[in-house]
Order: sequence, then C-alpha cells, then structure tokens
Amino acid sequence: MNEERIDSFKLIMEKEGLDALVLRLPENVLFLSGYWPMFGFSFLLFPKDQKPVLIIGECEKQEAQAEVWDADCITYKYGTIEAENAYTSVEGIIKKLINSRNWKKIGFEGNFEIVSSSWNTAEVLVPAKTTMRLYREVFGEKILVDVTDILYRERGRKTLYEVGKIRIANEIAAIGLRTFFERVDTGAGGVEIVAAVESAITWAGTGYKGSRRVRGFAQVATGKEETSRAYRPNEITTRRKLQPGDLAMLELAVVADGFWSDRTRVRVAGKPDDRQLEVYEAVRKAQEKAMALSRPGIGVREVDSEARALISKAGYGNAFPHITGHGVGFGYHEPIPTVSPKSDDIFEPGMICTVEPGIYIPDLGGIRIEDNIVITENGCEILGPFDTRIG
Amino acid sequence: MNEERIDSFKLIMEKEGLDALVLRLPENVLFLSGYWPMFGFSFLLFPKDQKPVLIIGECEKQEAQAEVWDADCITYKYGTIEAENAYTSVEGIIKKLINSRNWKKIGFEGNFEIVSSSWNTAEVLVPAKTTMRLYREVFGEKILVDVTDILYRERGRKTLYEVGKIRIANEIAAIGLRTFFERVDTGAGGVEIVAAVESAITWAGTGYKGSRRVRGFAQVATGKEETSRAYRPNEITTRRKLQPGDLAMLELAVVADGFWSDRTRVRVAGKPDDRQLEVYEAVRKAQEKAMALSRPGIGVREVDSEARALISKAGYGNAFPHITGHGVGFGYHEPIPTVSPKSDDIFEPGMICTVEPGIYIPDLGGIRIEDNIVITENGCEILGPFDTRIG
Repeated sequence: MNEERIDSFKLIMEKEGLDALVLRLPENVLFLSGYWPMFGFSFLLFPKDQKPVLIIGECEKQEAQAEVWDADCITYKYGTIEAENAYTSVEGIIKKLINSRNWKKIGFEGNFEIVSSSWNTAEVLVPAKTTMRLYREVFGEKILVDVTDILYRERGRKTLYEVGKIRIANEIAAIGLRTFFERVDTGAGGVEIVAAVESAITWAGTGYKGSRRVRGFAQVATGKEETSRAYRPNEITTRRKLQPGDLAMLELAVVADGFWSDRTRVRVAGKPDDRQLEVYEAVRKAQEKAMALSRPGIGVREVDSEARALISKAGYGNAFPHITGHGVGFGYHEPIPTVSPKSDDIFEPGMICTVEPGIYIPDLGGIRIEDNIVITENGCEILGPFDTRIG
Repeated sequence: MNEERIDSFKLIMEKEGLDALVLRLPENVLFLSGYWPMFGFSFLLFPKDQKPVLIIGECEKQEAQAEVWDADCITYKYGTIEAENAYTSVEGIIKKLINSRNWKKIGFEGNFEIVSSSWNTAEVLVPAKTTMRLYREVFGEKILVDVTDILYRERGRKTLYEVGKIRIANEIAAIGLRTFFERVDTGAGGVEIVAAVESAITWAGTGYKGSRRVRGFAQVATGKEETSRAYRPNEITTRRKLQPGDLAMLELAVVADGFWSDRTRVRVAGKPDDRQLEVYEAVRKAQEKAMALSRPGIGVREVDSEARALISKAGYGNAFPHITGHGVGFGYHEPIPTVSPKSDDIFEPGMICTVEPGIYIPDLGGIRIEDNIVITENGCEILGPFDTRIG
C-alpha cells in the first residue's frame, strides 16, 4: 500500500479541480492502483472522493485482486468467443458507474508519446481514436482534460514505496551487471553476452524480493567502432568477437513488476591499458562529482555543468555529447528530472534519475557509467550499487 | 526491394485519392520503406507520385541507408546536447519538403490502439497530441485523413518479399521450439525454460539469414492449473518445477527485423498418458483440418467452425474458448484475417495467420498447437514447420 501517493495525489486533484481520472496505460494504472496490468486493456477510474475502480478482463482478475491496493475490481469478458467487443463492455461498465455522479472535470492520458512497455512486451496497447470516442461517449467531451503533464510531474517525485520498488529493479539489474562482468572476455561476442545477461535477469530476478514479472533489455557494443557511437539511443548488438584489450559496453534496462532501472557498465577484455584507465577515471570522477552535488534544492543544470567541467578539464570536453541524466522508474526514460545544460529542474527528495557521464572517442571507443540515484533529505543514494571498474 | 508492395499501395492511394502518407509507427515505416526504425521517432513521407522521404535521427543514418529500399534519407540531430527539440527539427524538415506540393489529402495513423514493439523494446514511441499538432501545423487539419483501416487491410495480404521475412521469423521461432522440447523435463521450472528459449533465439537467431535485430518473448505455463488457464492473453511464468507427467505450454512471439511470428507448443515432462494423448489428437486433428481447408476463397468462419466441430465431436466442445486464428506478421497480432465464428473475412493469397486450436480442462490442463500459415494460390503453407508432438 502506497498511502503517501494516494493522499498526495488527491490533494493535487483538489487543487486542479479534478473530480476523477480515467487511466489506461499500464504505467499509470500501476502508479495509482498498485496493479501492473498484464495485457493493457484495463481502465482505472480514480475519483477524488470515492474508492477507485479497476476495470479489467476477467482473465486477469486473480492477479489484479492479489496486487491492487484498495479498489473495486469490475471484470468484463475478454479474449473468448462469447465475449462482446471489449470497448462496448467497458463503455457499459463505465456508464453504469458514473450514472449518479455529477463530475465536471475528468483527467485522461492525452499526450503520452513515449509509452513504457507492458508485461505484454511484444505489443503495447494505447488509447487512440477508439478509446477517445469511448471517453467522449461516457463522460462527454467538455469535461475531459489532458493530465499528461500532471502525471509526469507527480511521477517525478517517488514515494518511499516506489523508491523501494525501483531499488528492487536496480538490485535485479546488478545481477545483470555481474553477469556482464563475468562474461566479458577475449573471444566472447556481443550477442552471446546479451543472451547471458537477459537470461540471468529472468532466471535470478523472477521471485527476487517477491518480483513476479521481470525482464531485462540488454544491448552490448564491442570494440572501438561500436562503443564510440554507443551514446545513440539504440544499438544493434552484433556477433563480433572481443579481441584482447577491446572495450565492451552494456546498456541495460530492467523492469520488475512495472518499475524500471537503467544502467550502463563498460569492461575490457583482458587488461585495460593506460589510456582506457585515464578515460575511465575522468568518467568516474564526473559521476562521483554529480552524485556528491545531488541533493534537494540544487539546480540540475549545476550538476550537469560540474560533471561536464571535470570531463573538459581532463581534456575530453568534446567527447561527452549527451545529457548527464534523466528520470527513471515508471519508465525506462521519464522527463522529470532531466539533468541537462538546458534544464530548469531542481532536485527534490524522492526524485530518481540516472547519472551517466560518458566519453566517446573514435580511436579509443566509448566509456559510460550509468547508475540510478534517489534524492534523499540531505543528498542522494545509489540504488543497487555495483562495481564500476572497467577491468 | 518490395516493388510489389510499393506498386500495389500506390494504386490504393490513387483509388482513395490520397496524395501522400505520413507514417511514424515503426511497423508502418517498415511496411512502406523496408527500414525498421531503431528508436521510433522517425517519419516516412510517402507521396503517391514522388520518391518517399525517410526522416530519421542522424544517429541511425547508417542503419537506415543500409536497409531502406528507395527513399531519400533526411536526418536531424537527436539525443545530443546541441540538438534542438526533435519535433521542431522534424517540423522544419517537413515544411521545407512540402513547400511546393499541392497536396489535398494526406493519410496518417489515427487509430492504432495496438502498437507493435519496436527494437527499442523497453518503451514504444507513438503519435499522440504533440505529433498531431505537428501534422496540423505542417499539413493543415483539413487535408489529414486517418488511414488506419487501409493500412491494416493492405497489411493483411503479404507480398512474396514479406512472406519471406515472416518465414525467417518463423524459422527462428522453430529454434525456440526446439529448445523448449529439449528443456521440458521433470524438475525443470517455467522461468528456467523461458530464459533458455529466449536466450537460444537471441543467440542463434541473430545473423540467421541476415537477421540483425532478433528477440523472443516466451511464456511457459506448467502443470494442470497454469496450463488450463493459458488461453488468456498473458501469463506470468513461475518458478514451479515440472512433476512427472506435467504438461508445459510455451507461448512464443519472435521478432526478426520487424517481422513477427506467434507459435505455441506443449510438451509433457516424461511420458504422456492416454488422456493427454487423446486431447492432443483432438487438437492436432482440428489444426490439420483447419489447414486442409485454408485456401483462397474460403470464408474463415467455415475454417473456424470445421475445426471447432472436430473438437466438439471428440467431446471437448466447451473446452475450446478462443478463436482459431488471427493475422500475424507486421505485429504479434494483426486484425486481418481473424479466424473466428463472427468473422466475415475470406482467405486471399498472401494472407498470413495463426492456426491455434486448444483444449483447456481444469483436471487435465491445457493443450494448444499454434503455427503460422500463408495462403498460397491453391491452399496454404506452414511457415517454419516444427514437430507438434507432446512427448
């Protein structure tokens, strides 16, 4: 139970004049109900003054009732030949529910352009035109307001319960980092290491501190060419085999029951050389500095610029092309806070973000260290800490 | 190159009076450009009478140019600190492109409520309000028309090129099925089998017939209780260990460079008993019958009802609660064709769908066999065929 979240969100709704929310994206259903939908065609009706109602396919009733905090569960038939159209079913349920309620302002997810993968990882269900038609039909167009920004803002500060869950995701990620450390060696290939890391996360993560739905998403770049461009948002892992002295970089997302972590480590096949160690030291010091500064009240721009200054001072000013960090927790990337030169965000207790300085040099390769920190009352804490050394 | 697709789609555009399309979802960019975007903030401008233009982040130029059929690639800076807002960049590019074009009707993806995972599997980028604002700004609201239904309809009939790609995804899936067969044994757990199957797909699938981005999504139910409810759209795989005589059911999605397969197998730990074999035979005959009937011109409702009748005749009429099949290829589930009792679809050459009868009995468990077929000129072909036996 996450009373801190429910209580604070109801105050926000009071302030914003919202009578209720209707949420569909698994990440937001999880945020305000505690249940991470299995499939994605679930709706959370979250009134300011009454008990929330979770509307789900009958087929996931068992899981929902075991995980939801304090909500009524209403089910509809889904995925069987006698089931009617799911939208028609949900429309009927919501119409009955709101029959006697005189709501004037209802918030919905109008602008999520980046959606966290659900447990049904191969496809994602999102509210498009048909869902909007349903909302207009049951609520009326006039009272619907987009609350995307409010959700992102509130999600940006995690409660103790949420920090605990994201810590678990990071502890599971550390299992993946350990596997990466064990596997990087001359002759090992990127694809082989990805398979081993993801496999270890599924195997050792499922059941870890009660986690039931666990998945890792690994990318491994190897050698100078691949690692020097591995600041890009996505990489294709190849079968290229590590040569003695090659760098290998792991970019790793982990989801555990809807809570995410985002980590990076680099290792050398064999013994690191002096230049690799020098670049690693510059990155490590930049990360250390950013973390030392991270505390409530500091502007994230200062955190970014101090980390960046250390990298410049070490002579690699042009080789750190990306931001220092971003929010993480209800998704792999969340917008609040964004630790960048252009950001006006200010750290507050409960914010969780990545700290991920990196240096990328064509004739050497790329080195990035990425961890997730939570802002505490006086400073910050690394979630699921793990050795950062490159060899 | 997929000239058959480009030529036939341009005829459709002619018929529908569409001057151009603007596509953003990776599955649709792939459909009409040959390139499966790495990240998801890519746009394909596809005019009826000119060369298409792919607008992508500079960071994925290399991959796009290697894979795209015949399009101009325009890049914008993405993901670095000097990059401006990506929407602003794309807006500027499109405005310049359409400057001198007198388009009167432009199709966009207005109603994709189910979105295929992209290679950036941990999160999916979708066109929501900000993208719609961009489209209205650059094209004008009046000329924008939702072409979701046209895209789904045309995607429902695959070209030879596309059949070849989906065959590859199914051949990679067969590697996963083999691993499943090898791993099911007394004492093995569901989570362990999932890790092994996904790992085998990553390891042996990457590089298979040129595939570069390969991922498996496995769910394994074990024992009576779990397998008898495994007709649900999603399952949580547990650490439960197989007992002698237990059923294990694998539900497996595979994506290879944006093309999908969807397969299911069941195996018994040890030797199947007579009742398991009897139920398996009923399922196998239903699948065989459905496939024997599948040819151009037949109504899918007849295929469903004949398969269903065989299961009823075997005495399990109430134990087959779901449809017989659905489209697959540009996604894990596609709407055309839907092989169900309510469907009016008629098979046409190039249609690809699952054939997946199943029987679920609380005191025995569930048995489903699922394969993907393509409708040929005279009948159908199983893609990536593999042993269906349960032991």
